[in-house]
Amino acid sequence: MLRTHFINQIVPQMEGKEITLAGWVHLVRDLGGKKFLILRDKTGLGQIVIDKNSNSFQVAKDLTQESTIMVRGIVKADNRAPNGVEIHAIEVIPLSIAKSPLPLDVSDKVKADLDTRLKERLLDLRRLEMQAVIKIQNNVVKSFRETLYNEGFTEIFTPKIIATATEGGAQLFPVIYFGKEAFLAQSPQLYKELLAGAVERVFEIAPAWRAEESDTPYHLAEFVSMDVEMAFADYNDIMNIIENLIVNMVQYVKKYNENELKTLNYELPEISKPIKRITYSDAIEMLQSKGTNIKFGDDIGTPELRILNKELGQDLYFITEWPALARPFYTKRKDDNPEISESFDLIFRWLELVSGSTRNYRREVLEKELKARGLNPINFEFFIKWFDYGMPPHAGFGMGLQRLMIMFTGLQNVKEISLFPRDKKRLVP
Amino acid sequence: MLRTHFINQIVPQMEGKEITLAGWVHLVRDLGGKKFLILRDKTGLGQIVIDKNSNSFQVAKDLTQESTIMVRGIVKADNRAPNGVEIHAIEVIPLSIAKSPLPLDVSDKVKADLDTRLKERLLDLRRLEMQAVIKIQNNVVKSFRETLYNEGFTEIFTPKIIATATEGGAQLFPVIYFGKEAFLAQSPQLYKELLAGAVERVFEIAPAWRAEESDTPYHLAEFVSMDVEMAFADYNDIMNIIENLIVNMVQYVKKYNENELKTLNYELPEISKPIKRITYSDAIEMLQSKGTNIKFGDDIGTPELRILNKELGQDLYFITEWPALARPFYTKRKDDNPEISESFDLIFRWLELVSGSTRNYRREVLEKELKARGLNPINFEFFIKWFDYGMPPHAGFGMGLQRLMIMFTGLQNVKEISLFPRDKKRLVP
Repeated sequence: MLRTHFINQIVPQMEGKEITLAGWVHLVRDLGGKKFLILRDKTGLGQIVIDKNSNSFQVAKDLTQESTIMVRGIVKADNRAPNGVEIHAIEVIPLSIAKSPLPLDVSDKVKADLDTRLKERLLDLRRLEMQAVIKIQNNVVKSFRETLYNEGFTEIFTPKIIATATEGGAQLFPVIYFGKEAFLAQSPQLYKELLAGAVERVFEIAPAWRAEESDTPYHLAEFVSMDVEMAFADYNDIMNIIENLIVNMVQYVKKYNENELKTLNYELPEISKPIKRITYSDAIEMLQSKGTNIKFGDDIGTPELRILNKELGQDLYFITEWPALARPFYTKRKDDNPEISESFDLIFRWLELVSGSTRNYRREVLEKELKARGLNPINFEFFIKWFDYGMPPHAGFGMGLQRLMIMFTGLQNVKEISLFPRDKKRLVP
Repeated sequence: MLRTHFINQIVPQMEGKEITLAGWVHLVRDLGGKKFLILRDKTGLGQIVIDKNSNSFQVAKDLTQESTIMVRGIVKADNRAPNGVEIHAIEVIPLSIAKSPLPLDVSDKVKADLDTRLKERLLDLRRLEMQAVIKIQNNVVKSFRETLYNEGFTEIFTPKIIATATEGGAQLFPVIYFGKEAFLAQSPQLYKELLAGAVERVFEIAPAWRAEESDTPYHLAEFVSMDVEMAFADYNDIMNIIENLIVNMVQYVKKYNENELKTLNYELPEISKPIKRITYSDAIEMLQSKGTNIKFGDDIGTPELRILNKELGQDLYFITEWPALARPFYTKRKDDNPEISESFDLIFRWLELVSGSTRNYRREVLEKELKARGLNPINFEFFIKWFDYGMPPHAGFGMGLQRLMIMFTGLQNVKEISLFPRDKKRLVP
């Protein structure tokens, strides 16, 4: 018996047609001697009616929630049913009977806390809310790639096992690589820069790792990093690309995920070009005028970002031109003011989504910037040696997919978004 | 000064127009008191002419191969020039002067061996041959995703740091995860199966790792794995999907990478549906009839695959229904013949590209199959416990991108294809 249709393909115009569905038992109700079975497949929910005197009635009695089944039946238009149709069952074939009770209620009658949800994650991912998140994420990523393809970008796959710390920082996971110590890449930063020096316009969507000790709603030990690097470009070009990316993603999700946004009861922020750009210096001034005692050179933390969000009246804004020494060694300083850098962060309300900059492309500048940060250029020779061989000026950014998805779903914790999140206490499932 | 065009956008119809290009000095020639500079950008090569009495002549004298420059000039149609156009330089601005001599000749006048190429990889990736490989790979991956999107598949991101060996095998890289031992995933196998149990049709393109001790042209310690898993489907459905994927990829590359195939001097194999399917048993019989002393249960090695390739007269063929015990524990046995399994490999000439099967979806069967392979079900409880909660029948496959690219480029070694390959002796660049 083969599935002939997905649930969302069944419409009232198919009245009388015999079809076969496959999916999960979302709910079973007894009513007036009949069984009403809500079947779930990847396209949604559908109502199956099983008559008391049908052969399937006995079979249906043993069906627990979340069992997988196939159903052969006849389409009946019915205004009272969801989507205006129900299926009158001819045959119900159980495929796998689920244990009862379930450790997590997929039909959402009983709400569970996040720890339980992540522990029983497979069941949690079957909840309509998580199905919506997964579908929206699929389109966010798809739209991201489509925009970049249209701008002539090429997809790259950079190495994830690396010999040295990418940016000289800590927070690396050590790997035992054929008996030698190596590390998991925190970011494809240096490799994407090198590839911009060969392929010009590159992007990558791939895992990246940070050994975050702290447990926050915005950090994962393993996350999906969306990276872009572009030769013969500067940070303004990159901000323009990000504007296009974001606006296209928002339009795409609005167009293709109307149902999922409804399921999440979430309204996407209105985003239009240009996205507000405020310099770091102006941001500091604004914060000082609001009575905070922040000063030039300080990081702008969440409480301050909340103030900026309110003052600017913008869901999304760039903070540009950060102090040079607050940024990594590969960040280019401004030619006319070397205290500040050609850099930016993109902020959603009070959450950093993107960090980007013009990069240094001269070996002697890279060496100077490494030293200015107490790093030894010799340890970065594997990277800076290539700058002897004609590196173009270039710029780029990195964006965390799970953080970006907070903007697209209204969820509040990146651990809800990652399918199987990894953090200090989670290595399974 | 901003780039106004890419090189491949300059056509004879633009005669007299002032344009600005950016790129690398591919070659410089002196001829008749003029300099002929071949400029390279991501779209190809273009010819720049610099007159002896122009301001740029002195600048051009210092330009070494692979330096990055910008060039402002006037388009002149000229039949003798490549693409029928050359640019008469008004201004040449050096951006980064490359050291000379280069450790690797990007213009390919001097051929280097693979070790040197991988050591000087950034320069190697600028060679037109590698540029072609990168562009073809971009389209192979793009076409793969497009076909799957059209079939209703959703992109997933599975965890790469895992607690236990995926398939009970060795060859894992240990990771120190917050002081505990964990491993890098050999494959997303178990997670993609679980996700088929929530999302039905899923795919992932992501790194995977095998601690391969041996140095062969077909193995990498880190490779890109293209994975598909589909609920309510069996191995025949999956082979049908693979046929569509391969045929679409071949058409896509033929259509959009004509120039790159020419650069590689490579002709794609003719592939049409259906792709030949031969059972393992028939393959063994055919090999025995050709005088090999292979017997049922043996693996089919490269020498035997060469014979099959010749006998079948096919570039691409499936070997189906392998002995059950030759396949991993998650592989489903045939209902009517439990000695053999619902499985297949896809072979390109004599190279395995894909491995796939119908999977087991009943807990008791999984437990039995684990035991039959000397594995302890308790160690796989994190996986098999979910089979208590309504797993659908499902099937899927895994495909190595770099191996697939051998078919699309004619290159002979996956290390040439991986941008920065990782193997026992390579951790940099």
